[in-house]
Order: sequence, then C-alpha cells, then structure tokens
Amino acid sequence: MREVAIVAAGMTRFGELWESSLRDLFVEAASDAMRNAGVDAVDDIYIGNMSGGQFVGQEHLAPLMADHLGLAGVGATRVESACASGGAALRLGYLSVASGMSDVVLVAGVEKMTDGADATQVLATAADQETEAYHGITFPGLYALIARAYMERYGATEEDLAWVAVKDHAHGALNPKAQFPRKITVEDVLSSTMVSDPLRLLNCSPVSDGAAAVILVPLEEASKYTDRPVRIRGVGQATGSMALADREDPTWLDAVAAAAERAYRMAGVGPEDIQVAEVHDCFSIAEVCCIEALGFVERGEGAAAAREGLTALGGRIPVNTSGGLKAKGHPVGASGVAQAIEIFHQLRGEAGERQVEGARIGLTQNMGGSGASAVVHIFERV
Amino acid sequence: MREVAIVAAGMTRFGELWESSLRDLFVEAASDAMRNAGVDAVDDIYIGNMSGGQFVGQEHLAPLMADHLGLAGVGATRVESACASGGAALRLGYLSVASGMSDVVLVAGVEKMTDGADATQVLATAADQETEAYHGITFPGLYALIARAYMERYGATEEDLAWVAVKDHAHGALNPKAQFPRKITVEDVLSSTMVSDPLRLLNCSPVSDGAAAVILVPLEEASKYTDRPVRIRGVGQATGSMALADREDPTWLDAVAAAAERAYRMAGVGPEDIQVAEVHDCFSIAEVCCIEALGFVERGEGAAAAREGLTALGGRIPVNTSGGLKAKGHPVGASGVAQAIEIFHQLRGEAGERQVEGARIGLTQNMGGSGASAVVHIFERV
Repeated sequence: MREVAIVAAGMTRFGELWESSLRDLFVEAASDAMRNAGVDAVDDIYIGNMSGGQFVGQEHLAPLMADHLGLAGVGATRVESACASGGAALRLGYLSVASGMSDVVLVAGVEKMTDGADATQVLATAADQETEAYHGITFPGLYALIARAYMERYGATEEDLAWVAVKDHAHGALNPKAQFPRKITVEDVLSSTMVSDPLRLLNCSPVSDGAAAVILVPLEEASKYTDRPVRIRGVGQATGSMALADREDPTWLDAVAAAAERAYRMAGVGPEDIQVAEVHDCFSIAEVCCIEALGFVERGEGAAAAREGLTALGGRIPVNTSGGLKAKGHPVGASGVAQAIEIFHQLRGEAGERQVEGARIGLTQNMGGSGASAVVHIFERV
Repeated sequence: MREVAIVAAGMTRFGELWESSLRDLFVEAASDAMRNAGVDAVDDIYIGNMSGGQFVGQEHLAPLMADHLGLAGVGATRVESACASGGAALRLGYLSVASGMSDVVLVAGVEKMTDGADATQVLATAADQETEAYHGITFPGLYALIARAYMERYGATEEDLAWVAVKDHAHGALNPKAQFPRKITVEDVLSSTMVSDPLRLLNCSPVSDGAAAVILVPLEEASKYTDRPVRIRGVGQATGSMALADREDPTWLDAVAAAAERAYRMAGVGPEDIQVAEVHDCFSIAEVCCIEALGFVERGEGAAAAREGLTALGGRIPVNTSGGLKAKGHPVGASGVAQAIEIFHQLRGEAGERQVEGARIGLTQNMGGSGASAVVHIFERV
C-alpha cells in the first residue's frame, strides 16, 4: 500500500446554522479544504453522512455534493456508520489513495440536523430497531444505562462525569469553530436538567449542523501541496454487538478496543506513544469508556482522568483539545472528519492557544450508536 | 494494486418477501455466499443499502448486519448511492482487497422496501430535493421526461420501449430467483396502466425485497476457494448533474459514459469486447440510454436494440440475461451486487438455460437516481 498524507483541511463553524443548507455546509468546508491544498479538482470524493434521508429528505448525497462543488463527473461515494460516518469516510479515502486508485481525494463529513426532523428519533435509528428503539429507548437512555453500570461497578460519581464536560468546555473555549466556546463549572453540570439519570443536559453533546473536509494524497507527493503534511500511519475499524443487552460488559467498548488494536498494530505504536487524541464524547460516560478501550488508562480508571487533569491540556494525554463533541458540537456525519482536522492542526503546530507542545503522534476515535461500530486513525507529523 | 477475484456468490429470491426482515435478507444472502466460498470468517464487509432509515427505521446497518451474521468484531461499512449502492459497495470491496487492507471481503447489497413506507416517496429522496422532489416529481416522472425527450429526438415509439420489457421478461422467465419469472408480450405492455406518460406499468421495475452477496479475494489466492474465479478487471465510478434540468441532453447519461470509459481504460477493453452485460433498466427508457452510454450501440440506436434482438439471448450483446431490474426485481441497494452475480454465473458457464455460450468478458452497470451516479465493473473468466 502507498503511504497516505493529509495535506489540507477545511471546516465550517459547528452550531445551529439556520442560514446554511446541507449542501451549503458541504460546499463551504470542501471549498475551504481545496483552496488550502491549492487544487481545483480531485480524483474521488468520500462523504460521511448519517442520515440526510431522515433529517432533510435527501439521499444520494455523493453526486449532489460533487455537483454543487462544481465537480460533477468525479467519482463520489457516501458512507454511513451512524455517528462514525466521518471516520468511515476517512478510512475509505485512505484506501482509495493507498490502493493507487486515486491521487487526490477529498474526504468530507456533513450533517444538517436542525431543519425540523426530531433529532432524537432520527438518531435512535442507529440503535437496534427490534430490540432497543422499538421499546422506546433512545441514546441518552442507552448511555445512561452504561453510566449507571459503570458507576456501580467502579464507584464513579456524577461529579467525575461532570469533570469530563468541564474539561472539554475549557478546551472548546479556545476553539473559534466550536458551537459552545465557553467554560462551564462542575456546579453548572450538576445543576443542569436531568436528561436520563445519571446524565444531565451538560453531560450530553448537542444537536448541530456542520461540515468538515480534508485532502488526502500519496505521502510521496505531499510536498507539492504543503510543507507540513500529516501522515496517516494507522487505520482500524471494527464492530461489536449492536444491542447493548448483548454485551458481556456494557462498560467495555469491544469495537473501540478492536479498532484501536488494529490501528496500533498497523502503526507500530501503542497507547503510550499517543500525545494528543480526539475521542468520541457524545456523552461524558462515552469519553470515560473510550479512553479505557484505547488503553490510555486502565479499566475502571477512566472516570478519574478528567478530574485529575490527566486528559486536560498540559496533562499526560490531552483528550479532545478541540472541545470534543460536547463543546465543539456534534453534526454526526462530520464529527469523525473534524476530529482528524484537530489532530492535523495539532501535529502541524498550528492549534493556537490549545496547542499540545511538541505533539508528533496523535489519534482519533470515532464511534457509532452505543459503540457498535468504531474507527480509529493514528497520525504522525512527517 | 493487487488483482481481485470473485470466488463465490449468494442471493435471496427477489420479491415481496413478507416473511423476511432486512436483517434476515442480508444474513440469508451472506451466509449463502460464505458457504459457497467455504469460509466462516471475513476480514471486512461492505454493504450497499439505499435507505434502511426511511424504509424500516434502521440506519447503522454495518454493525447490525455483521452482528446478525455472527461476525461482530469484523470491520464493516455501509455505503449509499441510491439505486447504485450495490455497485458502490462492490467497488469498495475491490479497493479493500486491491489495496492489501483485506484478504477476504464480503460485499453485499440489501433492501427491504415492502414494510410500510411509501416506496415512491422514499425513492424520490434520491432526486434533488430543492429543484425536483420539492415540486412533486418522482422517478417515474423523471424517466418519463427522459423517454419523451428521447422519442421526440430519435423518433422512437412506445412499442420500442415495450420490447425492452418483453426481452427482459423473456430472460427473467429462465431465472428462478426472479420476482416475475414469466414472459410478457408487447400487447401486455401497451395495454398496461399508464404510470407517467409514456411509461406504463410494465415499463417500470417493481418494488422489491432482496439481498445479494459475493466474496472477493486476491486473484492469486482465488484457487483456494474455487476452481473458477472471476477476475474484476475494470472499475469505474462517476457522477453527473444531480438535477435532470441541468443536463445539456437529458437522453445522454454523462455519468454512465464517464464510469464506463474509466472501467474500459482500466480493463484495456472496449464495448466491442463485452459478451454479456447487466445494465440498469429501472425503466425501459433507462436500458435504452444505458446501452448507448456504454457504447454497445450508437446514439439514437438504443431504442431499436431489443426489438431487433440485438440485446436478447442469442443476439450480438445479450443484456440483462437475469431478467434485469424489470423482471428479476429491484431491491435498490441489492441490485448492483445481483448484477455482478449474474455475470459471475455467466462467466463460469453456470447460468443454465440463460447461458451466453462461451462468455469470457462481461460488464455490469449500476446507476442512482436519474443517472447522477454510476458504477461500471468489467469481469473476466480466468
């Protein structure tokens, strides 16, 4: 396989972007990335999107987006893996360049969630319809079950979970693209509305609009486009049991652990080598379980990580320096690509106030549903 | 890139399969393919599906399907390109093996269309929501516009279009998996209900449930799985203008022509080398336009091909020996994979009564919407 590098990135602000349609969001991010790479054409496009069909009545996004970008004719593919759609698209872009099929690839993620559909119901179609959604449970409830099981097993507290959100918002306050670029306190979290016990409003990522895009090329061609390419060194994808009830231990994310193991093996590195990471904090408990499955901390020690500063800027392994899904926003199909953009900026030393000094190796972890699908990428400054 | 071969196939019957759910259909076809390949595990799964979300309220199909196949853990990806979803999935499976990322890949297409959703409205989400569907037009109307333009430009008649359906049904009558395995006459077509002038009921492919699956491996490993592998020699994907009104000539399918040109170039063959083909006959007029864009006949000569026997079994270039989408059925996400299965059987000499004698090179062409996305594959008997 050829080595593959990211050479440019572009993204919209994340938020409730009433003035922008699904296609507007895509075109803004994709044009931004192409301008930054200095290209006016690409060989192939891969688009992550969870549910244009249900959110805004639009399937067949690949030709629509290519057309509105002014590139009708190009090969284009839309991929869906619920909230891991962006990560899945990045993996396909990687395969397209690594295989030799394409020399310049645009990978984008996009979601328009605020145009009228009931977001919670649409998102629930990422759960098992026959054994979960049919009985009325939606994702806040599924993650609340995980949180409750975790708290009972490991003695974690609501305050531990609050610290995850506080840490992510402290990071997000430094990110001008974030939906909620402001600090919050533990007291704010603990006094926010209860959504699904023990998860409160400020433990939950928001409903967002947004798009994110990157340009991939063969590493050996990268210097034509930038003097600071970021190599994709490891790629791992995995699945786990779809229904939470089918898992031996609901607090352990099998698919994340398997995807990470594949990415680490391919990259020839371990969790101890990762200097900055973006993980899938759709709910505070998700970040806790993810950093365990990624091997950043031992099982049962994830809940203390934010409170103890381990995962904060300046800590041993800064997690979600972008603000994460919680503070940056979570336009579901875009999130996996936006994660890669944060690591791209970190490894190029252009993350501004939220820069992790000297970061050379970074990781992204994106997942779908209650963790049934997961994609992990490992990046390295060249 | 590594050479890639199909070594096994499996599919359900196509039809109104009330007793089978979306997951049942997938598991039946995938298990069948795996059994035929003699494997009980795969490295990666690629699934084509247009709209599980809208048809049956189920997104996140990749982990769900992997789990129900008994393979939770495996990497799995769902791709959507409207009615070209199956073809797009096959292309991704090809990339996965060609790149060296995977050694044994399951590619499947599946759609469950009869469980209550308004199929015409769901399918219309493959058209441009802002300039087409919003104004009330659905696909029978869009293809009727193409047909009317074609008839006016080239002097084709309703009888010419009827012959396409008659030919496809004559083939489908020989296919035990077909939804409508029976012959029809020109008189049957011309007296059937008008759906959207000039397209009548028997000019339209049906609403169907079904699934189809194939196993891909590196060509050099293929003899471990079968003594008759079929090599994938060319792959082409392209897009065109999403909205019909944006096309210079609505009777000419730009995306199909571009995808075909890429596949022919990669395979080092031309249309004159193709001995059997499955093309996207969602409506009779679609087959007419497709065989022109594929270069099987000159522009304006597509309408006469079925009537003159050119595309029938025994003709110069038999098209849709399976019965095509018209007679075999069109579970939209599955159709692209089912096309590949027909060519797989033809090139292995196991197509029974519908065998094209001595076929060595075959082609599939799958498209989405009114032709805005297209995927072409070229296959060769090894």
